[in-house]
Amino acid sequence: MTFDFLLPDRETKPRETGITMVLDKGLGYEYAKDLMEISGNYVDLMKFGWGTAIIQNKNIISKKIKMYQSYDIIPYTGGTLFEIAYINDKIEELLKETKELGFTAIEISDGSTDMKREEKLDFISIAKEEGFYVLSEVGKKDLEEDNKVDLKSRIQYIKEELKVGSDKVIIEARESGKGIGIFDNDGNAKTDEIDQIIQKIDNNNLIWEAPNKNQQVYFVKKLGTNVNLGNISTNDIISIETIRRGLRGDTIDLLKRFNKS
Amino acid sequence: MTFDFLLPDRETKPRETGITMVLDKGLGYEYAKDLMEISGNYVDLMKFGWGTAIIQNKNIISKKIKMYQSYDIIPYTGGTLFEIAYINDKIEELLKETKELGFTAIEISDGSTDMKREEKLDFISIAKEEGFYVLSEVGKKDLEEDNKVDLKSRIQYIKEELKVGSDKVIIEARESGKGIGIFDNDGNAKTDEIDQIIQKIDNNNLIWEAPNKNQQVYFVKKLGTNVNLGNISTNDIISIETIRRGLRGDTIDLLKRFNKS
Amino acid sequence: MTFDFLLPDRETKPRETGITMVLDKGLGYEYAKDLMEISGNYVDLMKFGWGTAIIQNKNIISKKIKMYQSYDIIPYTGGTLFEIAYINDKIEELLKETKELGFTAIEISDGSTDMKREEKLDFISIAKEEGFYVLSEVGKKDLEEDNKVDLKSRIQYIKEELKVGSDKVIIEARESGKGIGIFDNDGNAKTDEIDQIIQKIDNNNLIWEAPNKNQQVYFVKKLGTNVNLGNISTNDIISIETIRRGLRGDTIDLLKRFNKS
Repeated sequence: MTFDFLLPDRETKPRETGITMVLDKGLGYEYAKDLMEISGNYVDLMKFGWGTAIIQNKNIISKKIKMYQSYDIIPYTGGTLFEIAYINDKIEELLKETKELGFTAIEISDGSTDMKREEKLDFISIAKEEGFYVLSEVGKKDLEEDNKVDLKSRIQYIKEELKVGSDKVIIEARESGKGIGIFDNDGNAKTDEIDQIIQKIDNNNLIWEAPNKNQQVYFVKKLGTNVNLGNISTNDIISIETIRRGLRGDTIDLLKRFNKS
Repeated sequence: MTFDFLLPDRETKPRETGITMVLDKGLGYEYAKDLMEISGNYVDLMKFGWGTAIIQNKNIISKKIKMYQSYDIIPYTGGTLFEIAYINDKIEELLKETKELGFTAIEISDGSTDMKREEKLDFISIAKEEGFYVLSEVGKKDLEEDNKVDLKSRIQYIKEELKVGSDKVIIEARESGKGIGIFDNDGNAKTDEIDQIIQKIDNNNLIWEAPNKNQQVYFVKKLGTNVNLGNISTNDIISIETIRRGLRGDTIDLLKRFNKS
Repeated sequence: MTFDFLLPDRETKPRETGITMVLDKGLGYEYAKDLMEISGNYVDLMKFGWGTAIIQNKNIISKKIKMYQSYDIIPYTGGTLFEIAYINDKIEELLKETKELGFTAIEISDGSTDMKREEKLDFISIAKEEGFYVLSEVGKKDLEEDNKVDLKSRIQYIKEELKVGSDKVIIEARESGKGIGIFDNDGNAKTDEIDQIIQKIDNNNLIWEAPNKNQQVYFVKKLGTNVNLGNISTNDIISIETIRRGLRGDTIDLLKRFNKS
């Protein structure tokens, strides 16, 4: 590494905490490969966002999956894909092709559909039994729908999903990070709600979607270097890693924590 | 395609409606090629934005034109380029070189100049006669200037331009999509104005510039899968296609419309 | 060039004014190379932002440095890197490796640390004596800290830094350009402050960080084509050059100034 006398350590992959989940919303293969060459070490999970996989060529998807895996990154399909299969009553076909393509992980969500709680929990168990690393997501994509879920229920849902097999539960914030779940309309975090969640749930089991820089800084300052963060833009992979390690102005005060001196 | 049992149909290119016009504001050749390999099927028109072509190397422009055309995409030059030629009294030279470079389409606008109505209509006729696919744009780039044009005149202008030869008329929203034309300062659509326009003009003849996701969702929900949309960022080509087909949370309710079940 | 009968002249590189400083926050090598092929002529300085260099592979950094230099671009390391070395008492090691990697320029800042004024001035002199092209930056990255520095002091600091060896002084605006230094919370320029600065300092010695388009337009309109601008996104290199030359709607009125007619 460059200037390695200034490089603060971080646990290496595969790791259980300090996970960075990145959003691939349709990168070309060569671009993705080039980007991973410079930053693949800092990505743990790569999400093929929502239903984007459906309109991409199977050959390119397969090549991207293998390429990401060669960097010890776990690629997986977004929750909306699962919901599209649910609407069409094609869950079995979905799981089959997901495996055939080489995916080892899957996201199960109910953010855009009226899936019943018991159904969602069943799907999580099934996917787990079939050998998938399972990410489930809590939160509705529609603001009005999302507001109907009170915090107590939200916490209960997270607990249930972890119990039946979810490896991590994702806290919804969408690509925008504004006016949804734990973020207000300006993208500021609702600290009270976050505090209540982490009082009841082991933070290591959660991935906080935090697409905007101020949100990433907020979580690293509040919950430490090894907070799990998601929906990171492919443009910000290097940036989020510098924020975690105290190598950007916003978190330089953290630098002393893992300084080599 | 991946998960093709979940893929809703769409009319294929070349098509008259459901057009996606994308903004190339200076992509490198290899990057553009890589991007088209994964998403070129979802692009109908590729605009070399404003005067960007002028400061790009002729070889690269020629290569990009051919490459885009190999994916059945129509590349064309932005309206501001035409206006720059107009200011310099070089329209003839412009049309000549545009053809020589291999462009088959051109945009004619008056958003930044005091071109007279009759002049603009003449230019549209001339370009059409010379064999170009002609896009014309209605709207001023300056907010104050834009506000001076009342809706009745705007509708009249669109009609006139279609009559003298425009293949499609573009409704101006710039790269930002805020505080201009049909969008307010927060980028929200002015539904009243849009309704009045589509009462008087066949919507298939219009391309709505809609650079932001909420705008794209708005138009697809309001005017359907096959609304013509423009100024789509090169980062959002896959996303806009998922929005059209109901494969993103925002429009998943549309999915039933074209479901294969 | 394409349509070169429409191309307004600009002084060529290397140049003392009209400088465009671009922010590389972790581009892959192939992507950067491809981008420079189309737009490298319009970049004077390329900053490896804040501490990003530390977590990039030495081979890739070296290749990027050489590639940028082959386009007559001066690559350099961000000020936060210098501050990280300062905190760790590793300035000597930093300067040594910076040279070994092939950098000929360096940025010295105190935006995130409590470096004393005399220390900063000493570092500038030392770097200058060691043969570096020195950029120094004035401004605090934290809003509260930044507000404590009054304008008179700010101007005094700039003068001192130029006197001891800075080739250019950068006016801080961060990657966001909002709520910092000369920009208010909405990213609008504080004209009064800017006027006072340029009354006291030769504008050619300053680089204004201006990441957002409205800011770039503002400075080009206010201070002319050849204002020095910084923190330009790699996505906006072609755009900023068109803004400078009057080839975008926002500045088309400037076109007559350097028109070839």
